[in-house]
Amino acid sequence: MSLPDHVPPAAEEQPEKPGQESGEKLKRDNQNFVDDEQLHLAAAYVSDAQYNRNIQFETSPKAIRFYKLYNHWSTQGVTYFFILVDLFLGLFEDPAVYLLPLWVTSTVEFICLLMFTVRLLHFSKVTPTKVFWKDAKNICVIVSILLTLVDMIVYLVLIENGYPAVRWSRVLRPLFCVNFTESRQLRRAFRNIRNTLPEITYVFVLFLFSVAVFSLMALKLFAKRKLTTGEGAPYFSNYLDVLFNLYVLVTTANSPDVMMPAYEVSWAYSIFFIVFIIVNTYVFMSLFLAVVYNDYKKHLKNEVRKLVYMKHRKMIEAFNILKTKNGTEFAVLDSHWRQLVKLVAPEIPSSHRELLWRVLDDEQKGFIGKESFIRLADLLNIQIVQMKERVHPLEKCMPNMYNSAVSQFICRTVKHQGFRYTYDVIIVINAIFIGGDETNPLISKAEWVFLSLYLIEILLKLYAHEPRAFFARFQFWNWFDTIIIVAALLGTIVNTALKSSGGYSSQQILDIVFILRVLRLIRIIDSFQRFRILLNTLVNLIPTMLTYAGLLVVVYYIFAIVGMEAFKGRIHFYGANSSDPAAKYCGNPALKGSQFAALRYCKNNFNNLLSSFILLIELTVVNQWHALATGFVKVTHLTARIFFVIFHIVVVIILINIFIAFVLEAFFVEYSLSRSAVETAVEKKIQELGMGDCADRPAGNLVEVMETNENDLGNIDDTDLKSRLRFRIASIRYKTVDALLQHMFEGELKPEDEIPTLEEIDNLSPDDFPPKPHTFDNVI
Amino acid sequence: MSLPDHVPPAAEEQPEKPGQESGEKLKRDNQNFVDDEQLHLAAAYVSDAQYNRNIQFETSPKAIRFYKLYNHWSTQGVTYFFILVDLFLGLFEDPAVYLLPLWVTSTVEFICLLMFTVRLLHFSKVTPTKVFWKDAKNICVIVSILLTLVDMIVYLVLIENGYPAVRWSRVLRPLFCVNFTESRQLRRAFRNIRNTLPEITYVFVLFLFSVAVFSLMALKLFAKRKLTTGEGAPYFSNYLDVLFNLYVLVTTANSPDVMMPAYEVSWAYSIFFIVFIIVNTYVFMSLFLAVVYNDYKKHLKNEVRKLVYMKHRKMIEAFNILKTKNGTEFAVLDSHWRQLVKLVAPEIPSSHRELLWRVLDDEQKGFIGKESFIRLADLLNIQIVQMKERVHPLEKCMPNMYNSAVSQFICRTVKHQGFRYTYDVIIVINAIFIGGDETNPLISKAEWVFLSLYLIEILLKLYAHEPRAFFARFQFWNWFDTIIIVAALLGTIVNTALKSSGGYSSQQILDIVFILRVLRLIRIIDSFQRFRILLNTLVNLIPTMLTYAGLLVVVYYIFAIVGMEAFKGRIHFYGANSSDPAAKYCGNPALKGSQFAALRYCKNNFNNLLSSFILLIELTVVNQWHALATGFVKVTHLTARIFFVIFHIVVVIILINIFIAFVLEAFFVEYSLSRSAVETAVEKKIQELGMGDCADRPAGNLVEVMETNENDLGNIDDTDLKSRLRFRIASIRYKTVDALLQHMFEGELKPEDEIPTLEEIDNLSPDDFPPKPHTFDNVI
Repeated sequence: MSLPDHVPPAAEEQPEKPGQESGEKLKRDNQNFVDDEQLHLAAAYVSDAQYNRNIQFETSPKAIRFYKLYNHWSTQGVTYFFILVDLFLGLFEDPAVYLLPLWVTSTVEFICLLMFTVRLLHFSKVTPTKVFWKDAKNICVIVSILLTLVDMIVYLVLIENGYPAVRWSRVLRPLFCVNFTESRQLRRAFRNIRNTLPEITYVFVLFLFSVAVFSLMALKLFAKRKLTTGEGAPYFSNYLDVLFNLYVLVTTANSPDVMMPAYEVSWAYSIFFIVFIIVNTYVFMSLFLAVVYNDYKKHLKNEVRKLVYMKHRKMIEAFNILKTKNGTEFAVLDSHWRQLVKLVAPEIPSSHRELLWRVLDDEQKGFIGKESFIRLADLLNIQIVQMKERVHPLEKCMPNMYNSAVSQFICRTVKHQGFRYTYDVIIVINAIFIGGDETNPLISKAEWVFLSLYLIEILLKLYAHEPRAFFARFQFWNWFDTIIIVAALLGTIVNTALKSSGGYSSQQILDIVFILRVLRLIRIIDSFQRFRILLNTLVNLIPTMLTYAGLLVVVYYIFAIVGMEAFKGRIHFYGANSSDPAAKYCGNPALKGSQFAALRYCKNNFNNLLSSFILLIELTVVNQWHALATGFVKVTHLTARIFFVIFHIVVVIILINIFIAFVLEAFFVEYSLSRSAVETAVEKKIQELGMGDCADRPAGNLVEVMETNENDLGNIDDTDLKSRLRFRIASIRYKTVDALLQHMFEGELKPEDEIPTLEEIDNLSPDDFPPKPHTFDNVI
Repeated sequence: MSLPDHVPPAAEEQPEKPGQESGEKLKRDNQNFVDDEQLHLAAAYVSDAQYNRNIQFETSPKAIRFYKLYNHWSTQGVTYFFILVDLFLGLFEDPAVYLLPLWVTSTVEFICLLMFTVRLLHFSKVTPTKVFWKDAKNICVIVSILLTLVDMIVYLVLIENGYPAVRWSRVLRPLFCVNFTESRQLRRAFRNIRNTLPEITYVFVLFLFSVAVFSLMALKLFAKRKLTTGEGAPYFSNYLDVLFNLYVLVTTANSPDVMMPAYEVSWAYSIFFIVFIIVNTYVFMSLFLAVVYNDYKKHLKNEVRKLVYMKHRKMIEAFNILKTKNGTEFAVLDSHWRQLVKLVAPEIPSSHRELLWRVLDDEQKGFIGKESFIRLADLLNIQIVQMKERVHPLEKCMPNMYNSAVSQFICRTVKHQGFRYTYDVIIVINAIFIGGDETNPLISKAEWVFLSLYLIEILLKLYAHEPRAFFARFQFWNWFDTIIIVAALLGTIVNTALKSSGGYSSQQILDIVFILRVLRLIRIIDSFQRFRILLNTLVNLIPTMLTYAGLLVVVYYIFAIVGMEAFKGRIHFYGANSSDPAAKYCGNPALKGSQFAALRYCKNNFNNLLSSFILLIELTVVNQWHALATGFVKVTHLTARIFFVIFHIVVVIILINIFIAFVLEAFFVEYSLSRSAVETAVEKKIQELGMGDCADRPAGNLVEVMETNENDLGNIDDTDLKSRLRFRIASIRYKTVDALLQHMFEGELKPEDEIPTLEEIDNLSPDDFPPKPHTFDNVI
């Protein structure tokens, strides 16, 4: 990051140091004046800190405007869009799901490359030139763009002249996805993996040695016996064959088949295989998980520490810009702070902003110190929902009717526990009907009854509760219910209309309607506190899980492109009920009589991006991967063997273990923490100001919570804030594991700790942590 | 534990309290006198503390003699022997591997029961009657013995009269294995599992709900399409069928086969299966592991805490018996201490005992306080190896020759790094020869060359190093080498002799010789520091892993007995190359054309204990378990389905996850700790006394270590101890994870902490731990 020239990096450490430069002096002289440019610069720093961006930007007013544009959701969205277009191009290029002419795909790809170039140029305007050229990400993108261009031209020329050609640069496409600054999380996950690799390598070599030794033993034991496998092939007849079979056995994919021929001869030989599985599958694979997990934790901790330091440093930069001298200390005045927040987060309503200020300026002094100021970045990340105690619209329009005894009775009934239980029973009964045969007229009529019942439920709830509260952003189950029911209603109506009009019934619509009907049943989970907690834990894991999904997609894409070039057209699928004799052996004579053909695996091929992805997922699940692999081995020999083994090592042994390590870690974090310190502070303040809800209740119960609080309406005595306002923290459901980790690490950072400089932060190593005494608690 | 009546439990807390009872007074009056009975009582307490026994024993002199006998290795060994005999009886009872007459097995079982009764009677003499009848273990054993007796009589009577009968009480046999006091570790593992179950149940119910909902969806989507599976059966035609298939899919055993019929119709249906696998296999199974791991840690921590408290309490009891007043404080005199250690560990040589005393009595005061005394239990558990700097026997016999220039050159050569590297190269070359065809005369001759080379290596090493040091207990690789080479030599000689005498060659001997040859290659690992560390970690895990193996054997045994009663004789194996037409369908017409028969799985049956165990191990590995299960389902319908699913839940979902949790935990502990505090103290003392080796080097390098230390021989200035003595801690290799955990927790227990009373210890709950602040370190 290029610091503004007039603020030396350590300025905040020696505020009294004489000889400060002119800009600094100017500000100090005009203590209460902060100009627009300075505000925008500070806002850029705060915004970076809020979103954990690690970008070094120029501090000229023009560069900051450019930087704001660079981070704007619209430019980011455009970049994402073109990355996706570039990736999806694979569907329309030979071998294609739907083949588009070469000029179309080439033009689209060229436009994508152009957009990437524009984006990169934009970035180069924002960041100092030196920093730009030092960054491996930018170099990588430039090289990828150039290589792709060269490859496109060569390919077009060759194809036009009738030569065979390979579009190898398609392998580079996922690099755009990883290397644009937007994909910080993805890049972090990759960096974690790269850092973990050296440690894994040792275990992996030892594991390979173990498999090799066992293979030698198996060769000596079984080769001379001339046994045959179930398919009639010679059993364990040469070393490479044994090695491959035993490697497959580690994945358990050919257990117990690989053992049977030997076991049939004598039970004693089964001991060999059992020992092999215990040593290599259970012990070594657990060891892999342990090593991956251990290293993952170590590097994650380091990454999080870097993030936290970076955030603090950016906030200190912002503080130094806005600070005014206040007695012997520097502070930020509330007026500057308000202008800053308006710039950083214009979407925050003023009441909410006042709340944040009150949290930071606990003693109502009108200014805040550095430590309080730093907390702003976290405060902005907390989703505070402002709940206006709104009057029901019906009550507004016709108060007499809505407040009548009958109406009030309905409201009470709907809010009663019994109402929920009644609908739980209805859901269970519905499940039984769904299981029945839908061509039965009784059941298809019952479906209408159930749909009406659910619709009535929603309408009643809307009658009893204020609609905007009912459809608030964090009311997951209300949204879920409504969407499912309305969609099912529409689907059923469309389907019935189609049927009655022409006797035609769309299978797709029916399928969707069926799925929607079954999904309705999920709602019953919400009625059990215990399950709701588990489900919330799972829901909380989703955002970070998506990072890993992105990582997998990148890896899959590369393997899919390579696989398509290597295996396209080798295996054909002739349709589900083809009578073509070639369908029996997937159109490739090499597969005649093979297990691959016998298992009807012909559709598992690399003939387009879609089936490649599905095949790779099947390989990730591992089971039968040897059957799939040997099918391709029969067609392309060594290429396939290498391809499938490398895929297994990369995806199953490394990536899936890291995924499991992540889920374990995330679960432990979720399990051991309920809320962070910052959130607690905000909540305390909300409660102090008497604007709180009973926030310990899960968000799903909001409607009831509002009801119980109706009596306290008049108690708000803080005149600064409008009455009839309620706040609650909505982030319990949405906070990510990353955020949690950061909050935790901040708890460890003492405020007087010196924040390292930017270069130091970049070079922090996971082994730098001060050695802790080995106590029971940090090991167990 | 019954405390001696004259020592109130909290006596050590208030040593000045007046009105102590008569026995206590007597001891205080005769301060320096501790009689034999008291010593024996104290020794019993210390021995309990050393071995973490949690037994309450009577304190009368007779009971203590009985107790010593009860804990003697011979009586324990006899008990283990009869437990094993009882378990192995299953091999000889119908359905048997080798059928013995009913009267033989009945008699043997009766003898076993008799021995168990004797053991229990012995225990009842040792422990107070009240405690004995309160202990669930004892009740369980008594009930098991009685039930087994009744069952045996009923069975014999029925069989004699020609009625069919089932020996159901065989299921109880593993209970003896678990409930005898010797199997503390096993019982603890079971207790841990039992405590973890409630938490697992919630996740499991949610998981089942998820599978049920997905099944309903699959039924709605696919039932009406009338698809067929690869075997031609209807695809997803009824709910139970779908449920079973999708449950199997969670284990991935039928992936991707179960998807193929739908995938062939449309790629969109593959999304259903992919979502299913992500949700149920990856997320839920990781969640299982996380919950199991989390709870396992929690309960393990509690168990370890109980153990540590119990140990402290026992040591305090011993201290109270031996203490004498010393000024205002109580202490134990060195003379009493020596007598005590002689009683507790008679095998410890006196020099070693002196070392331990010096560790405890750091300032050479001649007495030790309570805190030092408590450490004795841990000190006794550290394996200290006393290494006498012995003169090589050849040097003794013919010093001139051994010290000659040639002889010294040989010694130096053997001890040189190059010597080891030479042999590493030889091993690699040997590996290539082993891979070759052994009927080739060149290769079979080369084998003799390699054998001689290895033999020469061992002889040279024995020449260069002192033989007793070479074959010390902890010299793992030396033992390994010698045993492998000598065995291979013997095997090869016997085989050659047999061959040349009558042309007959025993396949068994050849198999063993081949395995030995390959095992030789493993030694190359020892040449790489990095791999040696990994290997040591694995070796350290073995002792506790055996606990889990024991646990699995118990569970397998129960399932095997039930399986044999349910499925014996239903599936037959006709030999490897039988021409009997029934061999094609395993002798059961229900299996005609089934996948089970096609895969040649006939030998996977419950026809005797041995094949039952192998089959259960195959089911644990999971792959193809649905093929095995459906084979048995075709034969016995619902029984088999229930049996196989329950087995999968118990063994794969619960036990294997606990096993992985254990390996992870053990690895982290091994990874984060090198040695415990007590060991460090002992080592410091050894170094202080100048009797140490460079103990940081791994034990495998001992021979070199001794060489480098030869120059310091004259430096020992402590006249109390004989010169030419060396100690080193040998337990790095052998210490268990349990021991590590205890040491770590002891670091947290402050010495002034009040040790809870025995009843409090028993009732400690894992949630009792004082809440810790949520810092980064105890979560990450």
